[in-house]
Amino acid sequence: MTISVFVGTSLDGFIARPNGDFDFLPAGGGEPHGYEEFIASVDAIVMGRNTFETVLTLGAWPYGDKRVVVLSSRPLSSTSIDLSAARGGRVEQMAGPPEQIVSQLAASGAHHLYVDGGITIQRFLRAGLIQRLTITRVPVLIGEGIPLFGSLPHDVQLRHITTRHYPSGLVSSEYHVAASVVNC
Amino acid sequence: MTISVFVGTSLDGFIARPNGDFDFLPAGGGEPHGYEEFIASVDAIVMGRNTFETVLTLGAWPYGDKRVVVLSSRPLSSTSIDLSAARGGRVEQMAGPPEQIVSQLAASGAHHLYVDGGITIQRFLRAGLIQRLTITRVPVLIGEGIPLFGSLPHDVQLRHITTRHYPSGLVSSEYHVAASVVNC
Repeated sequence: MTISVFVGTSLDGFIARPNGDFDFLPAGGGEPHGYEEFIASVDAIVMGRNTFETVLTLGAWPYGDKRVVVLSSRPLSSTSIDLSAARGGRVEQMAGPPEQIVSQLAASGAHHLYVDGGITIQRFLRAGLIQRLTITRVPVLIGEGIPLFGSLPHDVQLRHITTRHYPSGLVSSEYHVAASVVNC
Repeated sequence: MTISVFVGTSLDGFIARPNGDFDFLPAGGGEPHGYEEFIASVDAIVMGRNTFETVLTLGAWPYGDKRVVVLSSRPLSSTSIDLSAARGGRVEQMAGPPEQIVSQLAASGAHHLYVDGGITIQRFLRAGLIQRLTITRVPVLIGEGIPLFGSLPHDVQLRHITTRHYPSGLVSSEYHVAASVVNC
């Protein structure tokens, strides 16, 4: 099983403004920077409920018939947001610690997971379950918002794989997790 | 007057650990990534007292006879740290808002300032006085620490100039401040 993050942030490390808006990210993801190739390689997208509810407000369902797993302790039908926005999508709900989610998805045949959303990314990182990180920086400072990263039980050493930059100013770096080092 | 930042951070955006340590940055700055060329181009280094006191603990004074301006409301001689570590250096103290510091330094003939240290960088950014940012990311997540960036009165749009990556995994991006946009 490979577990990846592919995310856009402001240069100061935010994936959204405090209210969840991400108007500072270029519309439609901006110029092509590898997302299409990445998403084609994943078997399932794992996100938290906040991210799911944000995606539902976007209008068109962006994931086609790709399997989407929403982590939530409540049934999705209890949401106040119109689920019809996910029409045509393959959406299921799961709950539990990251290890358990990964086991369930592995047992159901998934080989490559795409973990998205600030809280979910941080939970999976803390559990030592993320292997690949592709971070695309948008050239803007927004000052405050929902951070991509959070606290960790110890340092996480990364191996830089590649960095590409694009005419609009996007800088996209891919890292693999090399090791988690206990920081004494 | 040109005012620049040239700084190394963890991938999660910290310039130091909570206690001020920066052991996660490669010793001696790591492989050459433009610092020597940059420092040769500046007329004065402006830093806060915390950064100055940290530099004093490093042993050898790293700035040669380059003019160093320490922002502090207290005389430097009141520090509890041994100032002899700055022997051979040209160190002076100034106090006041960023605009006033810049005016004073411009009047004394400086054309290119290097602003360093988390609090000082954030103060100068908030005042709209930083024109160039070179950020070198070290491939490690440390989870918590002293952040490079802080709150801003509004978005700061940047123009990406160049990004270089190095065999050790350093990724160095240079940006120019394009505009400060009021975010309504």
